[in-house]
Amino acid sequence: MSINKFKRLPRHVGIIPDGNRRWAEKHGLPKEAGYNYGINPGFKLYETCLELGIPEITFYGFTQDNTKRPSVQKKAFQKACIDAVKILANRDASLLVIGNTDSPQFPKELLPYTTRQKFGRGLIKVNFLVNYGWKWDLNYALNPANSKKNFYESIASVDISRVDLIVRWGSRRRLSGFLPVQSIYADFYVVDELWPNFKPEHFYQALKWYEEQDITLGG
Amino acid sequence: MSINKFKRLPRHVGIIPDGNRRWAEKHGLPKEAGYNYGINPGFKLYETCLELGIPEITFYGFTQDNTKRPSVQKKAFQKACIDAVKILANRDASLLVIGNTDSPQFPKELLPYTTRQKFGRGLIKVNFLVNYGWKWDLNYALNPANSKKNFYESIASVDISRVDLIVRWGSRRRLSGFLPVQSIYADFYVVDELWPNFKPEHFYQALKWYEEQDITLGG
Repeated sequence: MSINKFKRLPRHVGIIPDGNRRWAEKHGLPKEAGYNYGINPGFKLYETCLELGIPEITFYGFTQDNTKRPSVQKKAFQKACIDAVKILANRDASLLVIGNTDSPQFPKELLPYTTRQKFGRGLIKVNFLVNYGWKWDLNYALNPANSKKNFYESIASVDISRVDLIVRWGSRRRLSGFLPVQSIYADFYVVDELWPNFKPEHFYQALKWYEEQDITLGG
Repeated sequence: MSINKFKRLPRHVGIIPDGNRRWAEKHGLPKEAGYNYGINPGFKLYETCLELGIPEITFYGFTQDNTKRPSVQKKAFQKACIDAVKILANRDASLLVIGNTDSPQFPKELLPYTTRQKFGRGLIKVNFLVNYGWKWDLNYALNPANSKKNFYESIASVDISRVDLIVRWGSRRRLSGFLPVQSIYADFYVVDELWPNFKPEHFYQALKWYEEQDITLGG
């Protein structure tokens, strides 16, 4: 499928890269070994978005819900997030890490990126949800210091724009707390393949589907 | 498919009954004529839930976004909501209507049901979103008079519980503002058929799919 064949592209894509642990088990590895195999697919997707000219992409790194998992898994997904940022620092992107930094679960190595940082030519906005929690995101608005006129201007993730298309790998059909406010009108496409098996073709299929959807924003 | 064959049922189902206008057009009718054909399917679904013993169901009536549509359509979906409640009043349900009542778009006939009302034996909780708006629901929490410790205890729809399964008719794969907080972990099943073509079999297929999903609540 040619990358020039799309009639209409999303301006902001949300990615739920699920299935790393199931992939590891299928390959006779301990569950926690799967996360490391999720890094390269992320860069393949980043490159695909660059080629297509999609201006913004948000990756679901890990959530506060996820940190209830066994410690060995938690360490593995924290390390995978740090490693991914180290690689991205040598590419052309503008990175914003969003998550609850008031917690030991947030990797301190990623603190410098909680304000947006430009790498290289900064060709694409990349948002990375790290120790993100939907409760944390929404509760933030209740603090009078943060509270604006409208709720959606008051949340912790206010710097992340509305998401047009969410693509989830690993067959689950649910949002699992992914940016509830920005996802209100998002079209939702599910790929059955596990995330470490990512192929650009999966993403092209999502985009082929997306270009046929009507955009009503609830109207 | 027998109704006794489910291993695990959702406790709360959300219903997005989309496709009334497309159905009308396909049948050579004006778009607004479709809404009236959406009432009987709702009662078939209600009866199916009663038989199965599903204790709570939330129907997407109409939204504040929807009220931007042509006046003839707006009047038709408002009337369909009023007519549905009149019929339900002769059944066995406990009805709660949720929506922005501080607006002329809210049908005054439904004001008595904005506190939960028991009809007959009150066998099932039915929540009906009428002139509902996600912005209205979330902004409510910013009013200090409503604001509790946690955001999800502070929203306008606080009396509606977490949704386990959302079923949307009419092929669109998006939430369109349906209870963003209660839908955080909901499994999402899409039926391609338009809502007026509802068959209990569609719902059984959604339940067959749902019973195979794992429940992680984000963990």
